[in-house]
Amino acid sequence: MSGVVVNFENQKAAKASIAPLMQLVGEDMTRVNTLILSKTGSEVEMIPEVAQHLIDSGGKRLRPMITLAAAQMCGYEGDGHVTLAASVEFMHTATLLHDDVVDESDMRRGKLAARMLWGNEASVLVGDFLLGQAFRMMVEVGSLEALDVLSHAATVIAEGEVMQLATAKNLETTEDEYLEVVRSKTAALFAAAAEVGPIIAEQPASTISGFRSYGTNLGLAFQLIDDALDYGGNSQEMGKNTGDDFREGKVTLPVVLAYRRGSDEERNFWKEAIVSDTNDDAALAKATELLRRHEAISDTVLRARHYADMARDALGPMPQSAHKDALIDVLEFCISRAS
Amino acid sequence: MSGVVVNFENQKAAKASIAPLMQLVGEDMTRVNTLILSKTGSEVEMIPEVAQHLIDSGGKRLRPMITLAAAQMCGYEGDGHVTLAASVEFMHTATLLHDDVVDESDMRRGKLAARMLWGNEASVLVGDFLLGQAFRMMVEVGSLEALDVLSHAATVIAEGEVMQLATAKNLETTEDEYLEVVRSKTAALFAAAAEVGPIIAEQPASTISGFRSYGTNLGLAFQLIDDALDYGGNSQEMGKNTGDDFREGKVTLPVVLAYRRGSDEERNFWKEAIVSDTNDDAALAKATELLRRHEAISDTVLRARHYADMARDALGPMPQSAHKDALIDVLEFCISRAS
Repeated sequence: MSGVVVNFENQKAAKASIAPLMQLVGEDMTRVNTLILSKTGSEVEMIPEVAQHLIDSGGKRLRPMITLAAAQMCGYEGDGHVTLAASVEFMHTATLLHDDVVDESDMRRGKLAARMLWGNEASVLVGDFLLGQAFRMMVEVGSLEALDVLSHAATVIAEGEVMQLATAKNLETTEDEYLEVVRSKTAALFAAAAEVGPIIAEQPASTISGFRSYGTNLGLAFQLIDDALDYGGNSQEMGKNTGDDFREGKVTLPVVLAYRRGSDEERNFWKEAIVSDTNDDAALAKATELLRRHEAISDTVLRARHYADMARDALGPMPQSAHKDALIDVLEFCISRAS
Repeated sequence: MSGVVVNFENQKAAKASIAPLMQLVGEDMTRVNTLILSKTGSEVEMIPEVAQHLIDSGGKRLRPMITLAAAQMCGYEGDGHVTLAASVEFMHTATLLHDDVVDESDMRRGKLAARMLWGNEASVLVGDFLLGQAFRMMVEVGSLEALDVLSHAATVIAEGEVMQLATAKNLETTEDEYLEVVRSKTAALFAAAAEVGPIIAEQPASTISGFRSYGTNLGLAFQLIDDALDYGGNSQEMGKNTGDDFREGKVTLPVVLAYRRGSDEERNFWKEAIVSDTNDDAALAKATELLRRHEAISDTVLRARHYADMARDALGPMPQSAHKDALIDVLEFCISRAS
C-alpha cells in the first residue's frame, strides 16, 4: 500500500469508452440540460440555488443518457424521451439530496454537500420538489406505461433506502441481502431509465424486458464498482476520494466479503471500525490491507463483471447499431474504472 | 462433436467430493431412509408402489443431506433434523412426480417415469400424498419457524412451476427472467433445506441467513450446471442422457445465451427446434454446435461458478469444521460435474 496520490482522472479518461454514447445523444442531452434548468426554476429562491448546486457539480448523467440512447435505438421520433430523461435525472438528484441527509455526508462529488450549505431541512424539501417535478414531467409525456415504470421505481428506491437504514452497520449482512438493497436503491432506476425508451417507442414486450435487464445489471455492476473504487479499486494506490464509505461506516460488498473471509480477530477489527466508529487513517490503512489480503476488492470487481456480462447478453437480440455498441461500451467503461 | 459415448459415471466419481458429506451424515441418513420408507406406507396399494419407484431410482439425496449437515454443524442434538430431512426429500419427490406430468416426460433418472407406469392421475395424486406427509412430518417436529420456512418454500416452488409454464418455449426469455424461475423452482427448496438446520438448533438470525444464502446460491449453481450437463457440459463428448431438455423444448440458460448471441438465421433455427418441435438428432447436433460456437455452455458454467462463490462466502463466518468443509466440497462437486 503506497500512499502516493496519482491523477486518476487522466488514467480513467484514457480508458473511458463512454464517449460514443455522449456523441450519439449529445444533441438530445443539450435539450435535457435546458429542460432541467427550466424545471428547477421556482419563485421560492432557495430551490433553484440548492438544485443548481447539485446539478452543476458534474455527475456523468449516465442515467438520462441511457434513456435517450435506448429511445433513439428503438427508432423513437417524438420529444418524450428528452422529458423522461430529465425526469430520470431529477429522481436521481432527489435521492442524492436525501441520501446525504440520511448518511450525514459532508461532501458530494468533491464539493460540500448541499446540506452543509443550506441545512438538512432544505435538502429534504428541495429533494421533494425535484421528485414532484419529475412526476409532473412524466405525466406530460402521457405514456401511462412509462409513468407506471418510473413511479414504481421511485417506490422501490425508497424501500431500498429504508432497507439499508434497517441493516446499517450490520456486519452480518450476507451478500444476498446487500445485493437486494443495491437492486432497489441503485439498479431499479437504471432499469427504469433503460426501459422507458423502448416503452415510448412502442416496442414489443421482449425488447422492453431486454432493456430492463440491461439496466438492472448495469446498475448492479455500477454500484459494485463504486464500492470497489471507494477502496481504490484494483489499483495499488489510493485516490484522493477513497475511504468515504469506510469513514461513514457503510457495509459495502468489499467489507461483506472481507468480514466473512476473515479471522475472529479481524472481525473484531471490523466491529471496532464500522460499529464503534474507529475509522481514522490508520484504521483505513488496516482495512485496505485486510480487503486486499482476502481479495475482497478484486472479487467485488469479478462479481460486477458477472452482472456486466448479463447486461451485455440482455441486449443480444437487438440489431447491430452504433447505439448498441455504445451501450455495451458503457459496461466496459464501468468495469474498467476499477482497474 | 464426437459421437463417442464415454462412461461419465466413472469420471464423475473420480472428481466427486460429495463423499465427506455422505460420511458425516451417513448414520442420520440411514434413519432418514427408514423414516421415508415408513411414511410411504398406505393401505391404498398404489401409493407405496409409485412412491417406492421414484425413491428407489437413486437420486443423490443432496437436499436432506444438507439439512442433516447444517443441523449437525450447528450442534443440534435432537431428532428433528432427521424428520425435517425426510420432509424435504418428500417435497422434492412430489415436485418430480408433478414435473414429469407437466413436462410429459417419459424418463426420469434413466428409468421410465412413474406416469408411464401408473398414469398421470396417479403421479399427480401420489405427489399430493407425499406433500401431505411432508407437512405432517414438519408439524411433528413442532418448530413453527421451520414450518413457516418449509411451507413458504412449497408455495414458492409451485409459483415457480406456474411461472415456468407461462414462459415455456419463450425464446425471448431474458437471463433475469430465467433465473427468477430457477430461484423459485429449485433454489427455494435448497435454501429451506439449509435453513431449517440452524433454525431448530436455535442459532442467531445471522447464522440462519448465512445458511439460507448458502442454500439459495448452491441451488442456483446446481440448476445451471444441470442445464449445461444436458448438453454435455464442458466435455467435448455427449453423454447418454444428454439432449433431454432440448427434446422437451426447454428454454434453459445455455439456450437463452445462444439465442441472444446468435444471428437472425440462428434464431430461426432455435424457433424451429424449440417452438415447432424440430428436435431430432440432427437438430440436437446443430444446437450443440451453436451452443459451443457462442460459448453458451462454458459461460453457463461460469455463471454457476459465480453463485457457487457466493454460497462459499455465505458460510464464511461459521467456525472451521469438517461439516463446513464438506458443504464447501459440495459446491466444488457441483461445478466439477460439468467439466
